[in-house]
Amino acid sequence: MPNFESESRSTTPAVTVNGFSDDNPQFTLYAHHTGPNGFKVAEVLSELSLTYCFIQLEFGSGKNGMKTPDYERINPNGRIPAIVDHGNNDLIIWESGAIILYLVKKYDTPGYRLWAESVEDQSKIETWAMWFLHYHSEIVPSAQERYIAETRRVLAIVEKQLLQPGSNGWLVLGRITVADIAFLHWYLHTHRVGIYIEDEYPTVWGWIEKMKKRPGVQKGMKGARFPVREAGEGGTS
Amino acid sequence: MPNFESESRSTTPAVTVNGFSDDNPQFTLYAHHTGPNGFKVAEVLSELSLTYCFIQLEFGSGKNGMKTPDYERINPNGRIPAIVDHGNNDLIIWESGAIILYLVKKYDTPGYRLWAESVEDQSKIETWAMWFLHYHSEIVPSAQERYIAETRRVLAIVEKQLLQPGSNGWLVLGRITVADIAFLHWYLHTHRVGIYIEDEYPTVWGWIEKMKKRPGVQKGMKGARFPVREAGEGGTS
Repeated sequence: MPNFESESRSTTPAVTVNGFSDDNPQFTLYAHHTGPNGFKVAEVLSELSLTYCFIQLEFGSGKNGMKTPDYERINPNGRIPAIVDHGNNDLIIWESGAIILYLVKKYDTPGYRLWAESVEDQSKIETWAMWFLHYHSEIVPSAQERYIAETRRVLAIVEKQLLQPGSNGWLVLGRITVADIAFLHWYLHTHRVGIYIEDEYPTVWGWIEKMKKRPGVQKGMKGARFPVREAGEGGTS
Repeated sequence: MPNFESESRSTTPAVTVNGFSDDNPQFTLYAHHTGPNGFKVAEVLSELSLTYCFIQLEFGSGKNGMKTPDYERINPNGRIPAIVDHGNNDLIIWESGAIILYLVKKYDTPGYRLWAESVEDQSKIETWAMWFLHYHSEIVPSAQERYIAETRRVLAIVEKQLLQPGSNGWLVLGRITVADIAFLHWYLHTHRVGIYIEDEYPTVWGWIEKMKKRPGVQKGMKGARFPVREAGEGGTS
């Protein structure tokens, strides 16, 4: 494996899963502090009690860069996130959707904490997860007005989905799945453009707060820069 | 089901699969003639010999529109593609990645014509398929120069991947999978910005030509507008 600078993510007490522990983690995760999809993968790993070493890459071809021959051996596309599974012959997987599906298919059966058994239920999870994982890239912040309108449109769809009968305040199947986690970091973007979910989409806000309180999610989002609302800031008027 | 104008896709002789036939198709597919992801779904359906009725939607909220209450009951996101599986309690699935995964998981086992049995092989397919399905939206044509550079970067990665030992000229597993089909319509975009794959990326070109000759792909791509190169047009100098 290339010699990148890494950050160990240890918890007390150390957990041993699949013969690995926080001191000897099973996965290497390559991510970036501004890339939401890296944190989503970290959150899924943490929720599944899988151990990992978190490597913060930089843009470009400098030290710890994504556009270096060392990293391009991991991901030919030179992007984050990517993982290496040291518990499975150093298997390399890149592209956030593929990584998350690998993790649940390989390490969340038959418990189905974030995944589901039937193809039909899996499809419900995949629909929302894929949408959130990739929609972000469609709404380019440079087109500010369109971006704000699109963000509100998405939030309104999610608010409605969370209020479906039997949802229990989760996206699908009446319980948490990887689809919920795939949404979480959206929240970062809405504050930046002056949309305050807490004022406009109360159900979405309650769902975000519920997710952020989970120990697995908290471990995974360590290092992510969430916006803090200043007293008196913002408002929707 | 809402009453959209539809186009039946019949072949001679009619094929009966899962108790359905071209006259009584199993699926309804909602698509748009400029949206590559709708054709990718059509191609996967056709490759798996599944029967479907192809519904061409329009943008906006007019007749056959994507932003109509009728269609938003199918896809709350008001986008194409979406499918309804009349062979499975009219199950609705939207988001191209989720649709394609549903089709192969439900209808391509244990044959594995476009899919694979092991989680590891599935991940290889998913990585490339997810990348192609969503990368298109990242490289916005308005930023023309960056778009051209990014398109060349992607084509160079694909060219290299197709030349890996044991690839047999396919992306992964040495045979066709949904990952290959997820790429095919990329080709439309490169011509538009003056990149001629046939001149610059001969392995990619051979792979595209090989896919376009498959009867399943030909059936699925009916109605897609592929560019035709005029005599003397273009060139890479």
